[in-house]
Amino acid sequence: MEHLNPGGLGLSPSSTGVGQEIYSLSERLFPICRSITGDGVRRTLDILSEQVDLERHEVPTGTQVFDWTVPQEWNIRSASITGPDGQTVVDFADSNLHVVNYSMPFKGTLPLDELRRHIHTLPEQPGLIPYRTSYYAPTWGFCVAHDRVAKMPEGLYRVEIDAELKDGCLTYGEYLHRGQTEREFLLSAHICHPSLANDNCSGLALLATLARSLKARKTRYSYRFLFAPGTIGALAWLSRNEDRTYLIDHGLVLSCLGDAGSPAYKRSRRGDAFIDRAMAHVLGGEAGAKLMDFSPYGYDERQYCSPGFNLPVGMFQRSVHGTFPEYHTSADNLDFIRPEHLEDSFRILTEVIDIVEEDWTPLNLFPKGEPQLGKRGLYAALGGQKSSGATSMSLLWVLNLADGQHSLLAMAERSGLPFWELAAAAKLLLDHGLLAAAL
Amino acid sequence: MEHLNPGGLGLSPSSTGVGQEIYSLSERLFPICRSITGDGVRRTLDILSEQVDLERHEVPTGTQVFDWTVPQEWNIRSASITGPDGQTVVDFADSNLHVVNYSMPFKGTLPLDELRRHIHTLPEQPGLIPYRTSYYAPTWGFCVAHDRVAKMPEGLYRVEIDAELKDGCLTYGEYLHRGQTEREFLLSAHICHPSLANDNCSGLALLATLARSLKARKTRYSYRFLFAPGTIGALAWLSRNEDRTYLIDHGLVLSCLGDAGSPAYKRSRRGDAFIDRAMAHVLGGEAGAKLMDFSPYGYDERQYCSPGFNLPVGMFQRSVHGTFPEYHTSADNLDFIRPEHLEDSFRILTEVIDIVEEDWTPLNLFPKGEPQLGKRGLYAALGGQKSSGATSMSLLWVLNLADGQHSLLAMAERSGLPFWELAAAAKLLLDHGLLAAAL
Amino acid sequence: MEHLNPGGLGLSPSSTGVGQEIYSLSERLFPICRSITGDGVRRTLDILSEQVDLERHEVPTGTQVFDWTVPQEWNIRSASITGPDGQTVVDFADSNLHVVNYSMPFKGTLPLDELRRHIHTLPEQPGLIPYRTSYYAPTWGFCVAHDRVAKMPEGLYRVEIDAELKDGCLTYGEYLHRGQTEREFLLSAHICHPSLANDNCSGLALLATLARSLKARKTRYSYRFLFAPGTIGALAWLSRNEDRTYLIDHGLVLSCLGDAGSPAYKRSRRGDAFIDRAMAHVLGGEAGAKLMDFSPYGYDERQYCSPGFNLPVGMFQRSVHGTFPEYHTSADNLDFIRPEHLEDSFRILTEVIDIVEEDWTPLNLFPKGEPQLGKRGLYAALGGQKSSGATSMSLLWVLNLADGQHSLLAMAERSGLPFWELAAAAKLLLDHGLLAAAL
Repeated sequence: MEHLNPGGLGLSPSSTGVGQEIYSLSERLFPICRSITGDGVRRTLDILSEQVDLERHEVPTGTQVFDWTVPQEWNIRSASITGPDGQTVVDFADSNLHVVNYSMPFKGTLPLDELRRHIHTLPEQPGLIPYRTSYYAPTWGFCVAHDRVAKMPEGLYRVEIDAELKDGCLTYGEYLHRGQTEREFLLSAHICHPSLANDNCSGLALLATLARSLKARKTRYSYRFLFAPGTIGALAWLSRNEDRTYLIDHGLVLSCLGDAGSPAYKRSRRGDAFIDRAMAHVLGGEAGAKLMDFSPYGYDERQYCSPGFNLPVGMFQRSVHGTFPEYHTSADNLDFIRPEHLEDSFRILTEVIDIVEEDWTPLNLFPKGEPQLGKRGLYAALGGQKSSGATSMSLLWVLNLADGQHSLLAMAERSGLPFWELAAAAKLLLDHGLLAAAL
Repeated sequence: MEHLNPGGLGLSPSSTGVGQEIYSLSERLFPICRSITGDGVRRTLDILSEQVDLERHEVPTGTQVFDWTVPQEWNIRSASITGPDGQTVVDFADSNLHVVNYSMPFKGTLPLDELRRHIHTLPEQPGLIPYRTSYYAPTWGFCVAHDRVAKMPEGLYRVEIDAELKDGCLTYGEYLHRGQTEREFLLSAHICHPSLANDNCSGLALLATLARSLKARKTRYSYRFLFAPGTIGALAWLSRNEDRTYLIDHGLVLSCLGDAGSPAYKRSRRGDAFIDRAMAHVLGGEAGAKLMDFSPYGYDERQYCSPGFNLPVGMFQRSVHGTFPEYHTSADNLDFIRPEHLEDSFRILTEVIDIVEEDWTPLNLFPKGEPQLGKRGLYAALGGQKSSGATSMSLLWVLNLADGQHSLLAMAERSGLPFWELAAAAKLLLDHGLLAAAL
Repeated sequence: MEHLNPGGLGLSPSSTGVGQEIYSLSERLFPICRSITGDGVRRTLDILSEQVDLERHEVPTGTQVFDWTVPQEWNIRSASITGPDGQTVVDFADSNLHVVNYSMPFKGTLPLDELRRHIHTLPEQPGLIPYRTSYYAPTWGFCVAHDRVAKMPEGLYRVEIDAELKDGCLTYGEYLHRGQTEREFLLSAHICHPSLANDNCSGLALLATLARSLKARKTRYSYRFLFAPGTIGALAWLSRNEDRTYLIDHGLVLSCLGDAGSPAYKRSRRGDAFIDRAMAHVLGGEAGAKLMDFSPYGYDERQYCSPGFNLPVGMFQRSVHGTFPEYHTSADNLDFIRPEHLEDSFRILTEVIDIVEEDWTPLNLFPKGEPQLGKRGLYAALGGQKSSGATSMSLLWVLNLADGQHSLLAMAERSGLPFWELAAAAKLLLDHGLLAAAL
């Protein structure tokens, strides 16, 4: 789709180089060992706060959030497996994926057979370290490349996981860009994954960059950026903001935004929310884009779209989580994401925001027959098609559908024309006194 | 579709060998010369009564049923055509199809030319005897293989049809399996065809066997099994039960259930009745299955779906009547139906009954966010997937759609998962206090 | 689609030779130089008035019609370009397309370079004269074959356009065939194009012929035939009849009805108006027929379907305007249209009128079960299928859907049977006392 969004909207034109910025930010987030609680989340929020002034929330261990309880805080200093020959076989310092996330502390010496019961591998991807968690069942474990484990000789292994589980807090950050109204657009990314670049350093970095770029812009909607641990973090936020979720008119969960896959959108549970239609319109112009119906598996749209909330929140990603071979392995590293893909995701997101911001419902003030465009120079103005982006067809469609029942997005859906061509036409017609805004 | 119906429901697991039982019953029904009235129907009901205790109804000749009048009772003892050489050319004793069903009695000697006007053949299937009736226009006639007639020499033929038409009764049988409620599932098969194995010895035998198998089962719905002559029999039943048809929530007309064709379902006139959706769900998993919209031609769904009743009654068959070459000919014999096809039809029917019985509308008692399945052992319980048939996805779908607006069948339609997987998940969630039944 | 419309409806059977009549009438209209105002329109209405007694309306220059003002009246006597050698290069007498329609008068001598700025050609169709207008921007100009202009030598050219622009009137004609009710079917064709045979001598001639053929027929609907200049003429009519547009139940704009293309229909803005459904039904039986959604570009459906009116008016044509190479060129001449195509368009139009006239909503008086057709001879009556056009299936469909919610057209849509087969069946059932007309 040719993008005719007039420059005045501010986001898209400034996006040159933004892909590199998001990539650099992802690079800084990548090494940190995050979990659903602990200092990794806090260090991540520190870095994101350089972009926008994040409000940080600490929810104490034991706090009830709906059916769940905030767990203890987990922090880890080091972990390793030392072989019979005294050599270090596996070291947390090499990759924080090596330790099962939220693993209990452990120190001991075990024969290989017994140790193996605590080691996770990927036999079909023998060179990669898997990513495993054990948040709600106390255990300890390691994740190791299958090839490496195969080479471990029989004998006694010394194991040490210098981790700590104790009462503390669950941490999340949020930033509210205040618009002209209290109606909200919620943008949410999970902050609980350790060194996985696409899932979700990409989403965190992109969201913080978007928040920063939005600061200079006057918007109709208020934009809430939420950086929270998966599931328990989203639930904690919902629990604390239950009485104001009615303000959320649009929402997106963001993850996996930097890989080479085509953009993909999973609809909200409602299926026909404005965000669903706007994303479908934008992705309709993107080669290979995927539109999927809601299903209750994925990221935090599971919580936002639970039946007690049923919020208009969809999910935007590139390669669909769980379907690409790098997913939840050490191959989801900084080589897997690219500045150009991050930039493309950023652009799509700003186009959707622009539609949310700029959609309105025109009312034709000359509804009986067509008004005479020629005497107003509107055919001439269109001849060159230089600045406005409007075409004769877009003018005619807007006039014809401006019965107070069609917003610009609805006009785009019915006419098959790009939103921005219709928006430009509506602006031109408004300026010439042919339209008013419907109430 | 993999069938995950837990054993407790009783029907499917006991179906081993049921195909042979239905076939054997069909064999016994096959030789009888049935018509819309007469002793053939009574003898058929005698045999079916060995399965379940049928209530028999006798509706006197002359009784007005809506726009129709119950005709005289027809019985036939013998019929034959004897050639110029004294040899018997056609004998009712060889096949009851040889006489036009409901034929007037006749005795006389005719030249071949005149006789031919009373003989029906199938020139394009010259070896087969056609099936013809003349219920409401008084005439006499024979049905003979075209090849046989071609070999008949000129000369005088002696014809005798020792039949009787006199005031008597129209007979039908019904059996009511009482469930916990008075709401009914109507299962109806026509009993008026003579020696046609698929159409409808198969339907009669299958229905009686199903009725018997249902006796041991406690059901929510009451199941009414109706064995009635086509059209006039269904109308007689409707006429006598007009004030209670409102109790019918689901219904199926059954015929042609033993041939090798794929299962086929014709929707009720409503098109979106529960039975239409349940049959679509079950047949969705059957290779080659056909779903057809209602049309006012076929069997007694024509009467049940007439505009004054418009009952939720569809039609289940295998090869679609009127489209297979054996239809209404002597080739629709006991070789044309097979135990395995009868068993398959029986299985499909029990699956649909199971859905009707087991569908319910869950209400999520923890609708805000997902409840924590792990602490209830529901992830573990699912790991093995041994007994419950539930999967993680089915648990998540049930929880997500349990807003009181989706029954299990609606969940199956939306999720694309099998009904029984969702039913098992809902049972598990109910047992763990996560669901209640919506009112 | 086989056309089973019983002869009593009068139109179709009399259509033999009608294609030649319409063609001959088109031939007479072709040479006239029409514009949005002026004597060309009046001379055209004179000829059309030979078919039916047209009411002629003169709307004075300066009259306000909605957002528009009736322009001055334009008349032209002659126009030519004379070359440096004194030879006439371009002459209005050869083709009235040579002068830009509504051109200002002009007289002068110009060098070739300057003249060229006033000459329009079609470089990609170098042998054809384009059709150009300049109704609302005062200018003068010629339209010439590109090849001809290429051969014009340098030098001074004498140009003369003997035209006149002065206060006068805009002229349109209308004819009302009064039916039993005031509810109207509007048929509208633009009368402003000069020598373009398909666009729209064909539409004008066909409409006048249809009006004449309708005179002898008693109809339920009143039929309004409107011959008006494009845009401003339709607006003038709407402006003068604003308070009675509510009477319009059906409408068609007609143009380009004589070429070899398949019939095409563009739906009204409503999309599901009766005329949209009736045209879809008729075109459903025509090979290659096109159905298109409304778009606000085309002919006067733009005005009738503007949001302040939103009338149920579609557009019927053959080759879609703007898509065939002859469109708006001198190749749209009398060779481009053929009697057989005009006749085919006429037939389609009469079939649609017949559906509009003959549609009704039957109510089954024997809604419980099927009534007994046999005892009324309705099976026998159907055997031959000679006069009625009804079949067993059409009788059964009508009875089944005659619940007061389905008109014959709705029955045709649901059953897939031709309207006329169902109409014949309904007539037969009505005659036998089985149906009544729903209120």
